[in-house]
Amino acid sequence: MTEKLVLHEYAQSGNCYKIRLTAALLGLPLERQEYDIMNGETRTPEFLEKVNANGRIPVLQMGERFLPESNAACFYLADGSKLVPEDRFGRADMLRWMFFEQYNHEPNVATMRFWMAFVGEERLNEAQRGQVESKRAAGNAALKLMDEHLAARPFFVGSRPSLADVALYAYTHVAEDGGFTLSDYPHVEAWLRRVEAEPGYVPMSA
Amino acid sequence: MTEKLVLHEYAQSGNCYKIRLTAALLGLPLERQEYDIMNGETRTPEFLEKVNANGRIPVLQMGERFLPESNAACFYLADGSKLVPEDRFGRADMLRWMFFEQYNHEPNVATMRFWMAFVGEERLNEAQRGQVESKRAAGNAALKLMDEHLAARPFFVGSRPSLADVALYAYTHVAEDGGFTLSDYPHVEAWLRRVEAEPGYVPMSA
Repeated sequence: MTEKLVLHEYAQSGNCYKIRLTAALLGLPLERQEYDIMNGETRTPEFLEKVNANGRIPVLQMGERFLPESNAACFYLADGSKLVPEDRFGRADMLRWMFFEQYNHEPNVATMRFWMAFVGEERLNEAQRGQVESKRAAGNAALKLMDEHLAARPFFVGSRPSLADVALYAYTHVAEDGGFTLSDYPHVEAWLRRVEAEPGYVPMSA
Repeated sequence: MTEKLVLHEYAQSGNCYKIRLTAALLGLPLERQEYDIMNGETRTPEFLEKVNANGRIPVLQMGERFLPESNAACFYLADGSKLVPEDRFGRADMLRWMFFEQYNHEPNVATMRFWMAFVGEERLNEAQRGQVESKRAAGNAALKLMDEHLAARPFFVGSRPSLADVALYAYTHVAEDGGFTLSDYPHVEAWLRRVEAEPGYVPMSA
């Protein structure tokens, strides 16, 4: 890629970290622009007009084009690389876990982390408080499904890491911030260590 | 594709319809196996063991391999076809709208349809009832974003239909079942008619 890549982000968001981790594993340089989501910096008229009408980060900018949705941005960076399986079933199976991540994992594991570690349990509103129990159960169900899948495999798809691992690693490795107990999922814990051993790996705080 | 394709489904689910519509637009034959999700037929030990450990439909079966997640199954069928843009940005931008569909649209527009038209508002439990207002608002926000995007374009990505249109069409065209008012979104309504005019289009009831 010859065009300059800029990541519009909030560094502590796992969705933003996915894109940084993908770029790092592929050796791609990425400029970073930070927004304070707690103070509405992604809801300003300028942001909505120029960067993302959906008012969310991350957004990956290449030249004058803007790409929202974390997993789509990872796919853009990794398309044709070692992080996307070469065979048709493998590519679709990778996307299967990335859709699982956005539907079954992130709304539970990431939202619990945001509520518990960023907002604070005592500041949740009534509607949020009413969902804590079901999100905890659904988050544990997602982690259990991952644990069973990883019992027989080193990575989610095939024998090498793919974007499925990057996408699921981002919020899983900080799941304890949301009150989940990773030692309940030993195959997940072993897989986290395998992802961290990959050449080019960078931690969320980097 | 030479292998036999079987769709494990519940015909009234928009997520299952997406896969049938993709196959129809591409002229691919698809066998169908129906499950009664209202009576737990996707939670039996046999289903969880053989078809999908996540207990959900749709699942696309090709030979002895099983692929859950509707948008991943659509991608498998359409990979390399006219429904997936040929350029790198277009492919990622298509996935952007498919992740938007699963994160911002389906959990609101489809869940409201399920609650209002299948479960019945008077039979919702307290936690569900507490989310009706926020899901209605979030569903309308998703439809508004689509309407603004479609004001200047015939389809979501480029000048031809892609899987982004298939994925978003499925629950949008029946959004009124969930209490949404499509005439509030004239560009969306015009786009629905364009999708329906595509050669090979099949209705949900087919």
